[in-house]
Amino acid sequence: MKGTFITIEGPDGAGKTSVIKKLIPMLVQAVQQEIVATREPGGSRIAEEIRELILNPTNTEMDIRTEALLYAAGRRQHLVEKIIPALKAGKVVVCDRFVDSSLAYQGVARGIGTSEVAEINQFATENLSPDLTLYLDIEAHAGLERINQNKNNRQFDRLDQETLEFHEKVRSAYLTIAKEQSERIVQIDASQDLETVVEQCYHVIIEKLRV
Amino acid sequence: MKGTFITIEGPDGAGKTSVIKKLIPMLVQAVQQEIVATREPGGSRIAEEIRELILNPTNTEMDIRTEALLYAAGRRQHLVEKIIPALKAGKVVVCDRFVDSSLAYQGVARGIGTSEVAEINQFATENLSPDLTLYLDIEAHAGLERINQNKNNRQFDRLDQETLEFHEKVRSAYLTIAKEQSERIVQIDASQDLETVVEQCYHVIIEKLRV
Repeated sequence: MKGTFITIEGPDGAGKTSVIKKLIPMLVQAVQQEIVATREPGGSRIAEEIRELILNPTNTEMDIRTEALLYAAGRRQHLVEKIIPALKAGKVVVCDRFVDSSLAYQGVARGIGTSEVAEINQFATENLSPDLTLYLDIEAHAGLERINQNKNNRQFDRLDQETLEFHEKVRSAYLTIAKEQSERIVQIDASQDLETVVEQCYHVIIEKLRV
Repeated sequence: MKGTFITIEGPDGAGKTSVIKKLIPMLVQAVQQEIVATREPGGSRIAEEIRELILNPTNTEMDIRTEALLYAAGRRQHLVEKIIPALKAGKVVVCDRFVDSSLAYQGVARGIGTSEVAEINQFATENLSPDLTLYLDIEAHAGLERINQNKNNRQFDRLDQETLEFHEKVRSAYLTIAKEQSERIVQIDASQDLETVVEQCYHVIIEKLRV
């Protein structure tokens, strides 16, 4: 495939949404081509229905493996309907969260194990891996503080019921994955002010696109 | 686990539903204990919602791997909510379709490959395998004829849109699986009259339960 596949990862409250919002116009300006900014479910009707099922706060009896399989299913559909066609058309795709999120959240924080969660995601992606991943790193308590400050602009979902300990496991998992896959993942300190984080993300991506 | 886990498998139109309906009262009579007759989604609210998504005839854009992951997700939830608690309580569970269905339908007929589909189902079941599987064998065209005769009593779903060739692949996959796992799977000729099929199923199960 001719395009470039970039993912943005990080714990809740790392500021992914705000960063991407500022980043995309800068990238469009720099590379003079369309940038596809997406996130699961990304406008796929089926993936959207799967996501609703996962995030419904009343689904408290959902088993952790059911949840992991549903994430993989939604990911697959979004990938097939949106990401792969864009990559085939030679576009740059910037995706908010991808497989690393499942490894951190389901694999480690929920305790299923990363290798098992990696397996079902390999099934879902047929081993398609991002060309570049920006990991926005923030301590769990700082991330949760940001979420609380931003409460009125965010929809409450099932994951918001999780404890600080859960979010600490997520962050620690991300740090491990980033270290293990340092050729793909670039770690950015997301506790810095937004402008600085955006600037650093921008330079890493531009460097990748110009290679 | 103390219970006995029995699954009934077969192509569409093999008569699984009719057989199970007659079989259960006979088994209850014989073993003098509760028999849990179930099928996915089996009263699990979440599994039910997943099933609706899969079978919705308007979801024509559903990718085959998404479908396989959704089946595995629904299976997981049904297993955790219904089958495992019953087995732990020492009950006999008779389940209409299980992993073998996914191997035949998604693995072979849809062309994903059985080993890949087996992997995501091992994730879903944590390798819990039936103690006994009855495979109701019928030729694809005969099965489809039965379905057509019985049309008014069945809800039309997405799978009913499939061709004869698809159903032939399903049957041939089942025959292969039954041969490969002959220690677990007992093949029954489902083209015989209903009473005979029920009688044969009954004897195989009773023999298993009395061991």
